[in-house]
Amino acid sequence: MSNASQDLDQLRPSDGFASLLSYRLVAWRKDEADVALMIERRHLNRSGVLHGGVLTTLLDVALGYAGCFIATPGRRRRAFTLSLNTQFIATGQVGDRLTAKGHKIGGGASVFFAKGEVLTEGGRLLATAEGVFKYRGESGKPDGEAAD
Amino acid sequence: MSNASQDLDQLRPSDGFASLLSYRLVAWRKDEADVALMIERRHLNRSGVLHGGVLTTLLDVALGYAGCFIATPGRRRRAFTLSLNTQFIATGQVGDRLTAKGHKIGGGASVFFAKGEVLTEGGRLLATAEGVFKYRGESGKPDGEAAD
Amino acid sequence: MSNASQDLDQLRPSDGFASLLSYRLVAWRKDEADVALMIERRHLNRSGVLHGGVLTTLLDVALGYAGCFIATPGRRRRAFTLSLNTQFIATGQVGDRLTAKGHKIGGGASVFFAKGEVLTEGGRLLATAEGVFKYRGESGKPDGEAAD
Amino acid sequence: MSNASQDLDQLRPSDGFASLLSYRLVAWRKDEADVALMIERRHLNRSGVLHGGVLTTLLDVALGYAGCFIATPGRRRRAFTLSLNTQFIATGQVGDRLTAKGHKIGGGASVFFAKGEVLTEGGRLLATAEGVFKYRGESGKPDGEAAD
Repeated sequence: MSNASQDLDQLRPSDGFASLLSYRLVAWRKDEADVALMIERRHLNRSGVLHGGVLTTLLDVALGYAGCFIATPGRRRRAFTLSLNTQFIATGQVGDRLTAKGHKIGGGASVFFAKGEVLTEGGRLLATAEGVFKYRGESGKPDGEAAD
Repeated sequence: MSNASQDLDQLRPSDGFASLLSYRLVAWRKDEADVALMIERRHLNRSGVLHGGVLTTLLDVALGYAGCFIATPGRRRRAFTLSLNTQFIATGQVGDRLTAKGHKIGGGASVFFAKGEVLTEGGRLLATAEGVFKYRGESGKPDGEAAD
Repeated sequence: MSNASQDLDQLRPSDGFASLLSYRLVAWRKDEADVALMIERRHLNRSGVLHGGVLTTLLDVALGYAGCFIATPGRRRRAFTLSLNTQFIATGQVGDRLTAKGHKIGGGASVFFAKGEVLTEGGRLLATAEGVFKYRGESGKPDGEAAD
Repeated sequence: MSNASQDLDQLRPSDGFASLLSYRLVAWRKDEADVALMIERRHLNRSGVLHGGVLTTLLDVALGYAGCFIATPGRRRRAFTLSLNTQFIATGQVGDRLTAKGHKIGGGASVFFAKGEVLTEGGRLLATAEGVFKYRGESGKPDGEAAD
């Protein structure tokens, strides 16, 4: 899966919000993506618990990546979110290591559907989400678009 | 509206995520709240446009505050988000001044419903949301809880 | 608005679910649609109040129509729902006359966004919704598609 | 599971909307519920395919039941929906036998979270949903309320 690894590396410098929050794409394969973050004080809300915006961000990223994996070298897929629904089941604390797991569950060359969840290292469910995404340009076709 | 202004000031130091993203509560009154943010490079995704997680964060905050205003000095309301649905209508650029406007639209002493939208200064609609929130403890009652 | 009236009439015989539930499209204009239903016993759930499925149905229909109005005779737009989020604010009783009001709020030739609410005749808010829809074929273009 | 079977029987006469649409609760156990429906012409929209309102109804029912199972004879749980988000992945045809499968995924004595999906007999995924529900009265407590 060298292409995916390459993409993981290429990702980091160019993404302001990923740097700001310190989340990372840690697994990427056909229809699946995992995004990780360790909770720090900067991720807390005024009640001292994890800000909901951190959970929606991780889920948006994991679900979006899940639909954009492509194994062909030199090709890529890109998408933007049309809608994202998040349910907040439990909260997290400083030091918790979170993984947002995204799964593509359907769609075609224009639009895809995904769902996912955020879990702590111990397997506690913090949030679930489902979302609809639209591929940019022609990149949803079977062989994507040139990665330029 | 001195109580609200006082709360606006008290808010900032204690909230890690508000500092990290630089959003601010700029208006707060019965059933309404406005949250503002100016888009900077740190808010962008890897495609160079506003990260969806910024929009979901602003909406979560604006909708949550909309249900927590209380005019009585020394009293407060607090809530956490049960679910938030966001629709991404358009995207924003560096330098755009955004306002997320939250409106409480129903509920009781236990749960409230809110909706909202994110607009640019020029009135362009970037996103809409609706959410369900639960009051912490007894703070959803008419006179809230002691602000401690 | 003769074209819209014509379409309202053409609608009824072909739609099994509209007949089953007895809802009707009662207003249709650019970016807006109203759908009406009077609550009867058949619309109740086992607790004796309005079934949530009636509210989601009315909202799905009103939001979908809101994006499909076209003034040009002999042309039409058709769409299917990608996602629909509904919030259930209050419930209704037998005899209540409901109107679901849909509003298109954005989108392009491929996808549109809408929101809406269900109100009683007395103006009580029962539910809100927001949804994403995809136009069938080329029918989202400015002049729609041939009406068959 | 005689208690659940008893409830399944008791359910039918009192529920107008279940009769109108001909859906049935076909499995009910801790944190899970299955609701079945065979698509007939009355379930179609004006485009001749399954009406989205049928899918949202089945999901609302399945998710709601999933959180209301209780094994103790003479006790029950009841809930109403706060929010329901549905994604429409594919459509169904007359004659398709559908099952909506609901799963409770979290919550406490006041509110619960659920998710689910609608599948054809052949395993094709038509829709997914997630929802938040509130227990009526004290019925969300471990031993529910008297079934009276």
